Amino acid sequence: MKLPSSRDVARQLGLQRKIVVRAYRLLQDEGWVTAGVGQGTFVSHADSRSRAVGNGHDWTRALRRSARPRPWMNATVAGPGDLIRFTGATADPSTFPADAFRDVLDEVFRTMGASALEYGPTEGVADLRGWVAERLRARGSELNADQVIIVSGSQQGLDLISRLLVAPGDNVLVEEPGYASGFRLFHANGASVHGVPVDEDGLRFDVLADAASRHSPRFLYLMPNFQNPTGISLREARRVELMDLCDRAGLPVVEDQFDSDLYYEGAPPRPLQAMDRGQRVVLLGSFSKILFPGLRLGWLVVPPALVQPVRELKQMADFGSSLLAQHAMVLYCRRGLLERHLEGVRQVYGGRLRAMLDAMDRWFPPEVSWTRPKGGLTLWCTLPPRLSAADLLPRAREAGIDFSPGSLFHPSGGGGNTLRLSYIREPEERIRRGIEIFGALLKSALEREPAGSSGGPMI
Amino acid sequence: MKLPSSRDVARQLGLQRKIVVRAYRLLQDEGWVTAGVGQGTFVSHADSRSRAVGNGHDWTRALRRSARPRPWMNATVAGPGDLIRFTGATADPSTFPADAFRDVLDEVFRTMGASALEYGPTEGVADLRGWVAERLRARGSELNADQVIIVSGSQQGLDLISRLLVAPGDNVLVEEPGYASGFRLFHANGASVHGVPVDEDGLRFDVLADAASRHSPRFLYLMPNFQNPTGISLREARRVELMDLCDRAGLPVVEDQFDSDLYYEGAPPRPLQAMDRGQRVVLLGSFSKILFPGLRLGWLVVPPALVQPVRELKQMADFGSSLLAQHAMVLYCRRGLLERHLEGVRQVYGGRLRAMLDAMDRWFPPEVSWTRPKGGLTLWCTLPPRLSAADLLPRAREAGIDFSPGSLFHPSGGGGNTLRLSYIREPEERIRRGIEIFGALLKSALEREPAGSSGGPMI
Repeated sequence: MKLPSSRDVARQLGLQRKIVVRAYRLLQDEGWVTAGVGQGTFVSHADSRSRAVGNGHDWTRALRRSARPRPWMNATVAGPGDLIRFTGATADPSTFPADAFRDVLDEVFRTMGASALEYGPTEGVADLRGWVAERLRARGSELNADQVIIVSGSQQGLDLISRLLVAPGDNVLVEEPGYASGFRLFHANGASVHGVPVDEDGLRFDVLADAASRHSPRFLYLMPNFQNPTGISLREARRVELMDLCDRAGLPVVEDQFDSDLYYEGAPPRPLQAMDRGQRVVLLGSFSKILFPGLRLGWLVVPPALVQPVRELKQMADFGSSLLAQHAMVLYCRRGLLERHLEGVRQVYGGRLRAMLDAMDRWFPPEVSWTRPKGGLTLWCTLPPRLSAADLLPRAREAGIDFSPGSLFHPSGGGGNTLRLSYIREPEERIRRGIEIFGALLKSALEREPAGSSGGPMI
Repeated sequence: MKLPSSRDVARQLGLQRKIVVRAYRLLQDEGWVTAGVGQGTFVSHADSRSRAVGNGHDWTRALRRSARPRPWMNATVAGPGDLIRFTGATADPSTFPADAFRDVLDEVFRTMGASALEYGPTEGVADLRGWVAERLRARGSELNADQVIIVSGSQQGLDLISRLLVAPGDNVLVEEPGYASGFRLFHANGASVHGVPVDEDGLRFDVLADAASRHSPRFLYLMPNFQNPTGISLREARRVELMDLCDRAGLPVVEDQFDSDLYYEGAPPRPLQAMDRGQRVVLLGSFSKILFPGLRLGWLVVPPALVQPVRELKQMADFGSSLLAQHAMVLYCRRGLLERHLEGVRQVYGGRLRAMLDAMDRWFPPEVSWTRPKGGLTLWCTLPPRLSAADLLPRAREAGIDFSPGSLFHPSGGGGNTLRLSYIREPEERIRRGIEIFGALLKSALEREPAGSSGGPMI
């Protein structure tokens, strides 16, 4: 059958002719119609259609197995934007020092001009690497600035280290509950991810010993300070035991310090890396949580033997992070502006943490327990086992609050009666209101599901 | 044997005591000395030293095989900075519009404030993706902005695509001579790299057919316009044949357009992607060569089936590229400033290319041949087979010029009598002077090694 001319169709439908021409071409490309110059357009025979479609490349089969998604991949969809958000472990933009940062950027342009827009050294700007090293040395680490590599956020640092150390089929140990984007990343690099439980004193090194001998892991990944999601810090005595155990087992440690500067009482925590006697610890840090994420800058501190391999992989991955961003950042840090900013956000976030804990003490039913972090971004709530956080979530959103079900933070399921609450994205007043709402919701859920009930889905 | 106290050593050597304490601690950590509180510091017994050192982690063994370097890894070391540089295929900073870019950055701060410093969408800012799509459509591509993913330079785009499509042991086809950082990247991702020769009309698709059936490659990587290193463009007739062949063989094509906007005559070249009927082409582009590299921004255009996998891997790799940089860039582009800048650099670089070709016509001996690019950054020189470019390099540097030996651009050696000349980093006057020097050098080398000589190393 012959189709009407594109001119006729355009007139009939009140469209521009080029739209119709494009539609015809699309039909032709997909094999639905055939056309010859000056002959018009004809509906295809069925067999030519299937041939044309068979021509399209089968990319699904072309993907590496490890590139295929896992169940936890798409589970973090947030609720509508007008909710009181206890989700999202990212810094509050109302704290971002935009004006101060514009000033340092202007100054970089004034003093460096076009040279700030060139490629930079693969491993990062020397002065920024030096600043990172000095700061860690002040906290007890012994390291040389050569061991610091500037990366595009600590997630990239984690990716580079995984790519160097993990081959498909390898095992990696993580905290459980732990950092879900870490699990995804290790999985994307071909690793099997095994959880080691965290209790109120941090990682259980007694379980670690067993896991280390059972799985022959490539490394242990952990956040020793104000861990995401629980906010728990690894107790000092356990740090010693942990490092001894890793020494004996020859187990490398990847220490993620993404929020270690967000301590709300006492002194800055000492890095695990400072206790490393076997050059076994890789340390990750980032400006994303302590300042803002928009420049994508973080750092990786590696043992001397890994400097060159990491540098070469970073070179392959992106030729180095933004030179302009690094020059602005080191100016900002060297001026003391970061420390001043940190004093401010510690006040703000610390106040929000206290507001949340006070409100939970007041409004949450006694059957519910939670962590009491001394820093970081989030805390962890445990409901009676008969309640499901995932089932509670739609009702919480209806009532005006949002949170993250705890099962997201387990590498292989579990934690159905747990949840994560972030306390840094909302002001204190909204935190108090949200927790009051949440408390009422929990009480009514507990009344509907009295102790001893089956624990089935809550309707 | 007991060591003197740190206080005594500090006084004797005129050092701060904390320096000495740190030195002692280092000796202790490395097992050379032992110390007890209040007892002083003692030289260790030999066996405790070896035990302590044996404790250090063996990272070399821990590295994945593909992370180990290859011969071409460190071969691109440049000569001293005062040479006339025909090396370095990167844009000339004297062209960078630093002031104009500072203005758009200021405007982003004024209009968006802190929100420009947040995390951005993983796949990039919608307006920038739209701009890339519009630009490619104007050149004949049919694509949707959804297929565009903003990356941190086209090298990252190439890395993401390789990681999705290449598993250890796979094969990848490249142009020979071709882009050395591409070879390294594919190798780092576990692939074997196979060259398909390039002649004056571009990739030899007749050889490609054989290579495609012999190696079952995961994809063909090529630069169809102003290829690095030769400056050659794939002739139009070959493009049709190439795409037909890739269709028949089911061979994906990764098209690198890193310098396609640097055309010095005629109209902008049409992307291969515009001829893609099987959704088989992935396209890479970048701001690094056409504007400047300091923000690390580029783009990746993928068939619809790859959008989600690339997005997920980008999310794992770094959570997305800098939001601030993207907002500034799209403002710069939407204002027409990029097109105006391109008009300027095409004049500058085109003039340099003509200056170099004129000088080569005048000064180079007739036994030497070279390409005559119509755009891009570099051209390619072929010496008589008895001359070695690598042997010529030290004498060239002595004489005041620098170039890149051609063997660097071959995946498995060869090309010893070829070399790459970049013409975009030096002003015309220095180009003329450098080519005159080079011509004299070539003539004297040819005199020392008359036709029919053995072709051994030139002393």
